[in-house]
Amino acid sequence: MKNKSLSVFSVIMAGGVGSRFWPKSREKNPKQLLPILGEQTMIQQTFERMRGIVPEKNNFIVTNKLQRAQIAKQLPMLSEENILVEPVGRNTAPCVALAALFIHRLDPEAVMVVVPADHIVQNVEEFTKVIEAAIEVAANSSSLVTIGIQPNRAETGYGYIQIDDSNEKKKNGNYTAYKVKAFAEKPNIETANRFLESGDFLWNSGMFVWRCDAILNEIKKSLPELYSHFEILKETIGTNLFETKLQDVYSKIKSISIDFGVMEKSDSVRVFRGNFGWNDVGSWDEVVRLSEKDENGNTIKGNVIPIDSKNSYFLSNGKLIATVGIDNLIVINTEDAILICKKDDSQNVKKIVDYLRYKQMNDYL
Amino acid sequence: MKNKSLSVFSVIMAGGVGSRFWPKSREKNPKQLLPILGEQTMIQQTFERMRGIVPEKNNFIVTNKLQRAQIAKQLPMLSEENILVEPVGRNTAPCVALAALFIHRLDPEAVMVVVPADHIVQNVEEFTKVIEAAIEVAANSSSLVTIGIQPNRAETGYGYIQIDDSNEKKKNGNYTAYKVKAFAEKPNIETANRFLESGDFLWNSGMFVWRCDAILNEIKKSLPELYSHFEILKETIGTNLFETKLQDVYSKIKSISIDFGVMEKSDSVRVFRGNFGWNDVGSWDEVVRLSEKDENGNTIKGNVIPIDSKNSYFLSNGKLIATVGIDNLIVINTEDAILICKKDDSQNVKKIVDYLRYKQMNDYL
Repeated sequence: MKNKSLSVFSVIMAGGVGSRFWPKSREKNPKQLLPILGEQTMIQQTFERMRGIVPEKNNFIVTNKLQRAQIAKQLPMLSEENILVEPVGRNTAPCVALAALFIHRLDPEAVMVVVPADHIVQNVEEFTKVIEAAIEVAANSSSLVTIGIQPNRAETGYGYIQIDDSNEKKKNGNYTAYKVKAFAEKPNIETANRFLESGDFLWNSGMFVWRCDAILNEIKKSLPELYSHFEILKETIGTNLFETKLQDVYSKIKSISIDFGVMEKSDSVRVFRGNFGWNDVGSWDEVVRLSEKDENGNTIKGNVIPIDSKNSYFLSNGKLIATVGIDNLIVINTEDAILICKKDDSQNVKKIVDYLRYKQMNDYL
Repeated sequence: MKNKSLSVFSVIMAGGVGSRFWPKSREKNPKQLLPILGEQTMIQQTFERMRGIVPEKNNFIVTNKLQRAQIAKQLPMLSEENILVEPVGRNTAPCVALAALFIHRLDPEAVMVVVPADHIVQNVEEFTKVIEAAIEVAANSSSLVTIGIQPNRAETGYGYIQIDDSNEKKKNGNYTAYKVKAFAEKPNIETANRFLESGDFLWNSGMFVWRCDAILNEIKKSLPELYSHFEILKETIGTNLFETKLQDVYSKIKSISIDFGVMEKSDSVRVFRGNFGWNDVGSWDEVVRLSEKDENGNTIKGNVIPIDSKNSYFLSNGKLIATVGIDNLIVINTEDAILICKKDDSQNVKKIVDYLRYKQMNDYL
C-alpha cells in the first residue's frame, strides 16, 4: 500500500448454496466449502488470497447459519466476530450493506474489497496488483470500483460490462480505471460473440472495491428502503438487541443484487480490466476443464480402474469405480450418491437437485 | 415319463466362478448364485426347471467349497448328500464323472440330465418336452444325447454342432435325434454367418442326457486315465477315506471338458434341436438385452434418477445413482464397487477382473 494510514478490509461473500456441484455440494456443504480444485477448499484459497492484500484481522466473511461452523473450522485463524451471519440469503445488496455497517463502525473511510468465496484465481500476483490499483482509486474518491474480466470465449453464462475506453480514464500505473458505458445481462451466443469481438466488453466478476462511506451513500440513494432498515440495525450492533433486529430486518427486505440495485444506477462506477486466470467454476465441466489430465485425457481422483476409457473425470470417496469403454463422462461418487454426467451437460445437474426438492428427498439435498 | 420304472437324475453343474458379472459376481458369489434375471437366483431357476422333470430327491448339484454353503441356503429343500463338492475345478469331464459315480451306485441304468446352473430358459414347457424326448432316446440306447440350440444370430461366442439331417435320424414325437457331422469351435464372424445360413449348425449348449453306464463307458474309452482314478475313488464312497481320496484324485487329473474329452471322440452322439428361448447370459450385455425397458429404453433397478438419459441399464444396491445426458451405458453399483460400462463392450469387464488379480486387490474378487 502506498498510503500507510489507509485501512482496507476484505468482505468474502460465502452465502451460496450452489446446487451445481451435486452430489459433492449440499446445502450444508456448498461449493465454497469444498476442495473443488486443489487441496484447499475454495474459501480457504480465497482467504489466503485476501490475506496477501489486507491484514488478517481485517477479513470479514458473510455467510449463513448452516455454513458458519464449517467456515470457522476451515479458517481457524479467523476471529469469530469476523464471521457475519445472515438469517436468510437476500442476494448481494443486503450482504454488502451488512458488512459495510460493521466496517463503518471501525473506520468510515476504510476501503472494502468485496469478493465471492468461490472463485478461482490462477495468477494471484496479478490479481493482487489489480486489486491494489483498485484500492488506490477507491481510497481517493467515491468511486464504486469493480473488476471486469478480460473474456477469452463467447460465454453466455455471465453478465458483461461495456467499458468506455475513449475518454475520462483514471490511470493507475499499468492499470486503467475505465468508466462504464453499459451493463449487459447474460447474452445469447450471437451477442456473446459480438461482445467478444468488440474488445470493450468484460465479464462481470462480482468483485468490488469501494470506500465504506461511498457504498453506503450509494445504497442510500438507490435503495433507500433497504438503507433505512440497516440504519436502524446499525444502532443495535454490540447490544443484545442485535440478533432480534437482524432477523426482523431480513424478514422485511427484498432480495436484490448489488449490481442491479446499485451499480447499474450509479454514475461513479469505474472498472479495471482483470487478466489473472479468473474462473467462477460454475459447473463440473469447468472443473474438468481446469483439471490436469493424463495421457488418455482422464482426470482420476480416488480409486479408479479405467479400462479403454478416455476424456473423463473421476472423483470417488474411496469406493472403487471401474469403467469399460467410456468416453466424455464425469463420474462423482460420494457417501450416499453417484453422479454420472455427460461432459458439456453438467449445467443440467441442477435438474437432479430440482427433482430431489420436488420429491422432498431431503437427505440428498 | 412314458416308462414309469425309469429312474432319471439331474446333475446341475455349478462350479463356475464367472468373472463377467463383476462387480455383482465374485468368487464366493458367482453368476449362478445371483438373481441375474428375475427374483430367483439362476441356480434356483435351474433347480425349479429340473424339478419339473425329475423327482426332487434325484437332483444333484456339483460345486466347490466356496459355493457349497450358499447353494444349500438357496436350495433348502435339497438334501446335503445331493451337493457334491469338487476340491478344485477341473472343467466338465471330471464333474460329470463324479456325478456319474454317485448315481451309478443308486442305479447303473439311470438316465442323467446334465445342465449348467447358469443358463436361462424362457419357454420351460418346450424345454421339458425336448429333455423328455432326449431322456427316452438315452434310456433305450447307449447314445450320448446333447441339446443343440437353434441359432437366431451369427454368434461368435459359442461352439457349434453340425447335424446330419440326411439320414439315420431317430425320431421321437415331434423331436428328432440327429447324428452329428462335426463339432466346431467358436467361429469368427464370417464362419458364424455361414453357419447361420446353412441351417444345420446348432449352438453347443453344454446340456447332456445319457445313461449313467453309457457315459462311464465312454469316459473309460476316451479318457482311460481319468476313468481309472474315478474307479478307485468309487470304492471309497460312503467311507471316511472318501474326502482324502477325492483330494488326491483331483490333484492328479487334468482339466478337460466333456465335449472335447468325450463327445467329439464318440460316434454315439445324438443331438436334439432346442428352441426354447435359451440363453447362457454370458455378459451384462446379454442381461440388458433380456431385460424389460421403459419408454426411454432404460432398465432401472434400484434408486435411480435418470435425467435426459436413455438406452441404459441401472442396477444399484440402494445408493442413489443420478445421471445426466447419458446413453448406452451399463451401470452396476454394489457395496464396494461401481461398474460403468459402454453397451456392447461388457465382454471387457473381465479385463477389470484380470487387473484386480494382477494387482492382488483380492477384496474385490
